Amino acid sequence: MPETRSFRPEALSAFSARVFEHFGVPEDDARLAASVLSCADLRGIDSHGVARLKTYFDMLELERINPKPRVSIVRESASTATVDGDNGLGLVVGPKANAIAMEKAREAGTGWVSVRNTNHYGIAGWYVLEALKEDLIGWAMTNSTKLVAPLWGAERMLGTNPIAIAFPGLEEPPIVIDMATCAAAYGKVEIALRAGEKIPEGWAIDREGRSTREPLGMIEGGALLPLGSDRERGGHKGYALAMMVDVLCAVLSGANWGPFTPPFALQQEMPKRAVGKGIGHFFGAMRIDAFIDTDEFKRQIDDLVRTFRATKPAPGTSGPILPGDPEREAERVRSKEGIPLVMPVVRDLEDVARRTGIPLA
Amino acid sequence: MPETRSFRPEALSAFSARVFEHFGVPEDDARLAASVLSCADLRGIDSHGVARLKTYFDMLELERINPKPRVSIVRESASTATVDGDNGLGLVVGPKANAIAMEKAREAGTGWVSVRNTNHYGIAGWYVLEALKEDLIGWAMTNSTKLVAPLWGAERMLGTNPIAIAFPGLEEPPIVIDMATCAAAYGKVEIALRAGEKIPEGWAIDREGRSTREPLGMIEGGALLPLGSDRERGGHKGYALAMMVDVLCAVLSGANWGPFTPPFALQQEMPKRAVGKGIGHFFGAMRIDAFIDTDEFKRQIDDLVRTFRATKPAPGTSGPILPGDPEREAERVRSKEGIPLVMPVVRDLEDVARRTGIPLA
Repeated sequence: MPETRSFRPEALSAFSARVFEHFGVPEDDARLAASVLSCADLRGIDSHGVARLKTYFDMLELERINPKPRVSIVRESASTATVDGDNGLGLVVGPKANAIAMEKAREAGTGWVSVRNTNHYGIAGWYVLEALKEDLIGWAMTNSTKLVAPLWGAERMLGTNPIAIAFPGLEEPPIVIDMATCAAAYGKVEIALRAGEKIPEGWAIDREGRSTREPLGMIEGGALLPLGSDRERGGHKGYALAMMVDVLCAVLSGANWGPFTPPFALQQEMPKRAVGKGIGHFFGAMRIDAFIDTDEFKRQIDDLVRTFRATKPAPGTSGPILPGDPEREAERVRSKEGIPLVMPVVRDLEDVARRTGIPLA
Repeated sequence: MPETRSFRPEALSAFSARVFEHFGVPEDDARLAASVLSCADLRGIDSHGVARLKTYFDMLELERINPKPRVSIVRESASTATVDGDNGLGLVVGPKANAIAMEKAREAGTGWVSVRNTNHYGIAGWYVLEALKEDLIGWAMTNSTKLVAPLWGAERMLGTNPIAIAFPGLEEPPIVIDMATCAAAYGKVEIALRAGEKIPEGWAIDREGRSTREPLGMIEGGALLPLGSDRERGGHKGYALAMMVDVLCAVLSGANWGPFTPPFALQQEMPKRAVGKGIGHFFGAMRIDAFIDTDEFKRQIDDLVRTFRATKPAPGTSGPILPGDPEREAERVRSKEGIPLVMPVVRDLEDVARRTGIPLA
């Protein structure tokens, strides 16, 4: 296990908010953005929490992101809207667009919002947890910079393009699905590299398009594989899902798609051409009581959760868990014991503290 | 290659329609049902075409399916409806519910319909192709009888629960995604059994929950694995997708979910208890011009399709194809050369012909 230092969630969140404010992000927006990052840290999605603050800092400092976006609806119908994020923080544009989807759902039963001209929005799970607070089934997707090869391709063409959706229970906790559409996260390849280990077959190809078990083979010009990995095991399905997310987020809104999606880091290459504005998100919200009594739905979810927990376990396991279980357990532990940050992240934050004059708690 | 006999698509479709009518299915409904089956045969999805007619025949003969359902909306909002299929043929209930989603979309921008008390609805792709005819982005999902284990489970708990969605191009053909959420189709396990071959690692577990490469290991009390196969390669993601489909189709509508979803074949065991009515479907339709100019969307899809076709190919392949390519190619060939049916299917149809007095073309 790498060395870590533990921080109180509230302290990290307050620090993030002050850093955003330092660049002119309005106070409410800054707090909102910080709370999305904090949610990732609490839920154990370390790659999407305060570990990214340095990148947001870089982008804001270089004026690549607009700290005071005018988020606007450019087209709408009773149940839909297309939102232009005015190149704001995805952590601000995303929540505002998600709120529009929720508002539409209250009126029309469902709301669906495609967003262009935005940036990295944190964890997809945050958005569907917001919807859950109002008994809405929330959907959240985003495209992202190229990292994944289509099946039978030898280069990066798609992002890790996550899909999130959540369903509430009555007595049981909600089912919270939040999954990238690739076989394994890029962060896991980096972890294997640092540990000097090989990666499993099915995660990646090298720059020639050959299956590789070497982390560097993937990192240096290779690509991640879509969920399903190869043709035999359904790699065409993960590829199709990633493309679905790309179209709903970016083609439907007028953002950049596929290999033209701009990167969220300074050192990554810029796309060859622009086919739209910024990156894209897609949000949905469905009022449960537009379909069925909310309590009846939740009782059935309780029954379903208990039924799946009672599945006969596979050898060597304690049986199936439910989507959202690991993140809820992380949140339980970390809200008491604090957020453990690895030292490279701590040093990044110390650098941000030094350059902004904002003390790191 | 197994021996086959070739039939004209129109002849098979007319035969299917007459068989449905034989049981009192109204003429229009019978033709509709036959056209859904025919679509599967043309597109090369042999498992979902006329090969299933014998099962529909059995179910109708035993009065397990209502030939004259009163398909009704039991709850609705501007953009949603919950439909009760009155235990009709899924091939009739499905198209009617899909048409309601399309009608809602015309008014509210999008339409979302969850369906209970229905039966096997054919290929999911048919529904999204219908939506495409009106420049709607169609979604179609259905749950089905248990065949797939959740990750870390040792028994069948979920159906193969497909997801379909399609996006139109202007000059390029549409992107048509139609995929089960398991690693490989059950039909492929049966083919391996007949050929005396092993199945690839990652497709299935045996009745003890151990990974198996023996077709019979899966067939006799084992289970298929979800897309992603195991924990390392993302099996939790395929499991989550299958559960998402199950909830949207069945919990949201009041149908049976998970292991309680009734089978679509006489010889399969009946579920231990009922938690709803029949199986469930979920349909969506989104008006493209509720988000963006339809022509602009289609031009971007053309660009995307061409961009992905130009991906650097992986070694030993001719590069990525687009979702829907294989089915469109099958349709091109089969509409000219006819539908090749394997002899067990031909004998099933001859049996149906004998028992109904309807001549097989």
